[in-house]
Amino acid sequence: MKITVPTLLIDKAKALNNIHNMLEKAKRNNVRLRPHFKTHQSAQVGEWFRAAGVEAITVSSVRMAKYFAKHGWKEILIAFPANVLEIESINELASRIKLHLVAVNIETVEVLAKELKHPVKLWLKIDTGYRRTGIMAHDHADIDRILTKIEASANLSFEGFLVHDGHTYKQTELDAVQTIHNTTVYLLHLLRDRYKKKFPNLQLSLGDTPSCSMLENLKGVDEIRPGNFVFYDLTQQRIGSCSFEDIAVCMACPIVAKHPERHEIILYGGSVHFSKDVLLQEDATSSYGRIVNLKGTSWSEPLEGIDLVSLSQEHGIVRASPELFSKYQIGDLMGILPVHSCLTADLMRGFRTTEGEAIEHLSGIPEQELTF
Amino acid sequence: MKITVPTLLIDKAKALNNIHNMLEKAKRNNVRLRPHFKTHQSAQVGEWFRAAGVEAITVSSVRMAKYFAKHGWKEILIAFPANVLEIESINELASRIKLHLVAVNIETVEVLAKELKHPVKLWLKIDTGYRRTGIMAHDHADIDRILTKIEASANLSFEGFLVHDGHTYKQTELDAVQTIHNTTVYLLHLLRDRYKKKFPNLQLSLGDTPSCSMLENLKGVDEIRPGNFVFYDLTQQRIGSCSFEDIAVCMACPIVAKHPERHEIILYGGSVHFSKDVLLQEDATSSYGRIVNLKGTSWSEPLEGIDLVSLSQEHGIVRASPELFSKYQIGDLMGILPVHSCLTADLMRGFRTTEGEAIEHLSGIPEQELTF
Repeated sequence: MKITVPTLLIDKAKALNNIHNMLEKAKRNNVRLRPHFKTHQSAQVGEWFRAAGVEAITVSSVRMAKYFAKHGWKEILIAFPANVLEIESINELASRIKLHLVAVNIETVEVLAKELKHPVKLWLKIDTGYRRTGIMAHDHADIDRILTKIEASANLSFEGFLVHDGHTYKQTELDAVQTIHNTTVYLLHLLRDRYKKKFPNLQLSLGDTPSCSMLENLKGVDEIRPGNFVFYDLTQQRIGSCSFEDIAVCMACPIVAKHPERHEIILYGGSVHFSKDVLLQEDATSSYGRIVNLKGTSWSEPLEGIDLVSLSQEHGIVRASPELFSKYQIGDLMGILPVHSCLTADLMRGFRTTEGEAIEHLSGIPEQELTF
Repeated sequence: MKITVPTLLIDKAKALNNIHNMLEKAKRNNVRLRPHFKTHQSAQVGEWFRAAGVEAITVSSVRMAKYFAKHGWKEILIAFPANVLEIESINELASRIKLHLVAVNIETVEVLAKELKHPVKLWLKIDTGYRRTGIMAHDHADIDRILTKIEASANLSFEGFLVHDGHTYKQTELDAVQTIHNTTVYLLHLLRDRYKKKFPNLQLSLGDTPSCSMLENLKGVDEIRPGNFVFYDLTQQRIGSCSFEDIAVCMACPIVAKHPERHEIILYGGSVHFSKDVLLQEDATSSYGRIVNLKGTSWSEPLEGIDLVSLSQEHGIVRASPELFSKYQIGDLMGILPVHSCLTADLMRGFRTTEGEAIEHLSGIPEQELTF
């Protein structure tokens, strides 16, 4: 079908290659890959993982867990501090699948202990440096209190310690990512040593895409949970997690106006399509996406001398060199690599493979289709 | 129904008041209000306008036009450079309603002249200073060429000149907004003087929310097209378009974790709910939303000493004074005024009035429900 409006394309071969590479790396390191599905949020992309042997997954909301449970996933970790207001849906899920939850505060564990009607595996989220959320790795008193509460609960079982090193997203050098990762593994090992007598099977889980992509050695933990790697994006390329060729999604946007006096091209494609996530360039200008040539079932490397420099709600402004400006006509489709594929996919509510297959995204699924 | 997940609330009394005030101002100035529906994108909110006497509306995409046409709107202006790739849908719409389109380049007009099968009113978008898109107001040669093309077309009729002064969004002083507005009206009058002999009924249309909200005198044009004013937001409050009390939408987000050592509260509510739009504070810190107390069918003024300081995909981080920190518990709902109501509404895909009525948003409507 002809593309007439902003459309998020998937190069399926690239996505499959990204999945394959991460699975192979997990195997080489003897760690379990429990991929995070928040980037694609798609039943069909989930099947690509299932075909590659994945059985247990990570999501970041109860809604996402319901969606993938409906699509046959039997073991799901909701890697977000459990939202006790959703206890009804949590119980519903726990009655159907092997559900893993995450807690940070004892108050949450108290509610779960009281309200759960079915078994749930509980991870404690540990903060090893990111400072978003999590129990500080040295806060043994807090951990002890929570573990006592878990042990006294009929339906909670302690699964292990879980970390998200989101501060790797601020790095652009391998050494920095390596140091963050080593620190985390060191702190997790201290915790395991402290608690392994009581919980000999306790698991260690981490999983930011930069660490999992950039480091060869991921030994020392039991599982990794990267998510963005399935598609990657310009942010990951900047960090060093991937090359431009690994980026498996690309926006296609209609050109609706041209301004020859300033070599600017106006796209149908704005912040409601791309998101407002921005990449600060080395020359201190901002980029909302890099321009590529769409060709056949894929696209080129980013072009030099042309950039998506501004977004408003529905408009994108592309500034080009005079040479490139003259190559584009009103009614053409322009290809743009996104800054942050998770947010772009969420806004676009669906994809199309470059071979024409429509691919759904949870954000395009009405609420009523998620009830069992 | 109990709120358990991030929810966008509407205080309907405030929204109705905002609608009433803008309509009254339009009447006092003897200009037509053709409200932009891109902020709410809701059939139900549209009915509030209809009940107040509005018959002709503005939207920013063909998709939005289809949606409101299905909901009985008979005169719709798509205030976005016409996307010639959607000519099929444009023809479908033009066969059913009084459709207004916008053009910036002669190439677009040529395609429309050739492909249109039904009458369409065409506006020329003029750039009077914003420099996003539009024909420069002094570019008479370009305008002449396009008007000649329109006159030779069977289905196009020239409706007038249309401006969007988006640069008012960068202002925070009445004088600056007044100067921008006066410049635009002056340039539009020069254009009208030049072309009124040939087109005695040509219309002048402008419509950014700051100008329409802040200025008492809007005479000199035929219509205004503000949109954001129905809800307003923190951005408009900062500009000076509204007071905090006028903001008619508020997020309600569950508290999922607390960090006493740094007085930070973790919300279920991140960039996939709020958008990444940010307000730079006077102390150079960034705010993603201001915290209010939810009470009864409304909410308080923003609280001092507490702020939404960071967003990731699903997490929001609120930093509070020790006193305020201690007042919030895990499982509470926190109220947050959004930075940019258009983007937040688009992401949330629906609203709930503070009286419990579910209100739809186009972004939650599946594509197949938009076909006639």
